Amino acid sequence: MISAEASATTSVRVALGDRAYDILIGRGLIAEAGRAIAERLPRVRAAIVTDETVGGLHLAALTASLDAAGIESVPIVVAPGEGSKNFATLETVVRAILAARLERGDIVVAFGGGVVGDLTGFAAAITRRGMRFVQIPTSLLAQVDSSVGGKTGINTAEGKNLVGSFHQPDLVIADTGILDTLSPREFRAGYAEVAKYGLIDDPAFFAWLEQNWQGILSGGPEREHAVATSCRAKAKVVAADEHETGERALLNLGHTFGHALESATGYSQRLVHGEGVAIGMVLAHEFSARMNLCSPDDGIRVEAHLKAVGLPTRLSDVPGGLPDAQDLMKRIAQDKKVSRGTLTFILTHGVGKAFIAKDVPPAAVEAFLNDKLAG
Amino acid sequence: MISAEASATTSVRVALGDRAYDILIGRGLIAEAGRAIAERLPRVRAAIVTDETVGGLHLAALTASLDAAGIESVPIVVAPGEGSKNFATLETVVRAILAARLERGDIVVAFGGGVVGDLTGFAAAITRRGMRFVQIPTSLLAQVDSSVGGKTGINTAEGKNLVGSFHQPDLVIADTGILDTLSPREFRAGYAEVAKYGLIDDPAFFAWLEQNWQGILSGGPEREHAVATSCRAKAKVVAADEHETGERALLNLGHTFGHALESATGYSQRLVHGEGVAIGMVLAHEFSARMNLCSPDDGIRVEAHLKAVGLPTRLSDVPGGLPDAQDLMKRIAQDKKVSRGTLTFILTHGVGKAFIAKDVPPAAVEAFLNDKLAG
Repeated sequence: MISAEASATTSVRVALGDRAYDILIGRGLIAEAGRAIAERLPRVRAAIVTDETVGGLHLAALTASLDAAGIESVPIVVAPGEGSKNFATLETVVRAILAARLERGDIVVAFGGGVVGDLTGFAAAITRRGMRFVQIPTSLLAQVDSSVGGKTGINTAEGKNLVGSFHQPDLVIADTGILDTLSPREFRAGYAEVAKYGLIDDPAFFAWLEQNWQGILSGGPEREHAVATSCRAKAKVVAADEHETGERALLNLGHTFGHALESATGYSQRLVHGEGVAIGMVLAHEFSARMNLCSPDDGIRVEAHLKAVGLPTRLSDVPGGLPDAQDLMKRIAQDKKVSRGTLTFILTHGVGKAFIAKDVPPAAVEAFLNDKLAG
Repeated sequence: MISAEASATTSVRVALGDRAYDILIGRGLIAEAGRAIAERLPRVRAAIVTDETVGGLHLAALTASLDAAGIESVPIVVAPGEGSKNFATLETVVRAILAARLERGDIVVAFGGGVVGDLTGFAAAITRRGMRFVQIPTSLLAQVDSSVGGKTGINTAEGKNLVGSFHQPDLVIADTGILDTLSPREFRAGYAEVAKYGLIDDPAFFAWLEQNWQGILSGGPEREHAVATSCRAKAKVVAADEHETGERALLNLGHTFGHALESATGYSQRLVHGEGVAIGMVLAHEFSARMNLCSPDDGIRVEAHLKAVGLPTRLSDVPGGLPDAQDLMKRIAQDKKVSRGTLTFILTHGVGKAFIAKDVPPAAVEAFLNDKLAG
């Protein structure tokens, strides 16, 4: 790699043996994408899967970058939004890859947010029993979370992400400049996952976020630092527990509550994923305090920061109301982090001290939710 | 395992590290299935995927066996035939598994022939990003080939088995008695894959088959020996090359020609898979002889044996006619064993001496097919 790129680009390695890969992070990396791919994966053809929104804004730039590196590509454009994570769109994408006559050594590029990444990664996993796969995430959420780690999947009426594969990318390219085109709401939703890494096991990072969050939103150099720190944290966990048999579950901090809220609001624009996670993380701290695992001050501190950033933090922040606690518990029970009828939650001993709690009594969670809904 | 079972059962181990598993082979094993599963996979619930034909004949016996071992099960019944290997049926099976609230440690049982095994294995691979999976193959083809090795998948209009996963079973139970209910045609089709193991690298086994094939068809002890020898051969190849990056391709002997013939006959009852493989294996020997790789006598010997068993061996044996050589070549080119525009074929230096030939000239294959079609 020539020095001009190296000086602007942070590289994070995901250490997965012979499936190890790099995450490149920097402003303006779309223009370098073709060269970065060609250096690592010579002589490939590419299918670029994107949605109408991202494609309309940025597909021409990506295609030009690939062309310049001699990489022939075909675009596959899906409708934007969570609704595309279904069997019908999966079939459409898979068949378009086959129709383009891509071979097993060729690449499928996911160019979009979490929906495009999850759908495309799954399509790459099952086409010809596994094609190479490059993630070019265009939302903050995808850059710091879903593009790294190999979880791919779609939704069914039975639940979210219950169908999918583990399929690691060969390369992740996170252009932090592309985040300038996100709506403030979508940017903030991704920020919830950034804060999560501090809350799991890095209290110094959380304290840094409390001081520097405005630079992340405004596009200062703090943004690259936050994305790189998040990717490093995720890469470490993924390398230690690729298939989530153990500590990878820590990444679900705030997600069990969050998924129940997303489910209760029909995965609609009433509450996007990161917003559910923000409320879920506050609830996880509050429930932990109620179980005497941490101080109530921890929940107050977490809520204060997320609120300052502009994220929802309480059940009453969800527009349009929520069902009762019993209904939310049913949604939690169908969540995939259920094992043999008992509940597994990520709880915490305080900021940066999250842990996996097995055998959490469902009755205690329901009583807690009942109180929160009332108050 | 108690001695009564051990005396009747042959066990073949597939050595895949922490994903190693046993293939149990013997007459009457359905009655032992519940116990065999419970010994290896304690405290699971099961979904049994089967088709209307196999289910009608044998589902009650399997369910009773599981019940007796304390394994609760739900049946999921699909239509028989290759037509069920599609996205729509995949979605139906996956959602039925989710609706039954099976968890990641529970098992999905494939109870049927190759279609049910491929479809069910794929459903198990992608439900909750990978559920445990037990194969109980009920056709000879599935017992000696498709149930072992972890290849799963479905078809699309673009081709056969172009969508799928590698997902190893946790256990394979081959009840050779259940093969008594197969039609003679279906039994013979499976026999083509048995003969294949001799032709790849075991000339002594091929010679044994030439002497003992009648006992295999009639259900004598020769049948268990043939199934066990075939499974051992396949297990050895799979353990050495799980994801088909090398020598596993040898298992495709006869399959490139065979798939083109299946495709040309619309995957219909005009030509079932094993019949295509039988003709394909004869063609592979004849083409090898034409390339001066082996003697014409090898092709004559192979054809004589397969014909004695009652299998089709020539292009003119395909009822309803075939398209021209150019059309067949197009079907071969879309086959997944194409790499960067050149053809990879399994060719042979003689009976039991197959090898992977890369860069086979497409023009030579087309000329050969042209001559064979002309008679």
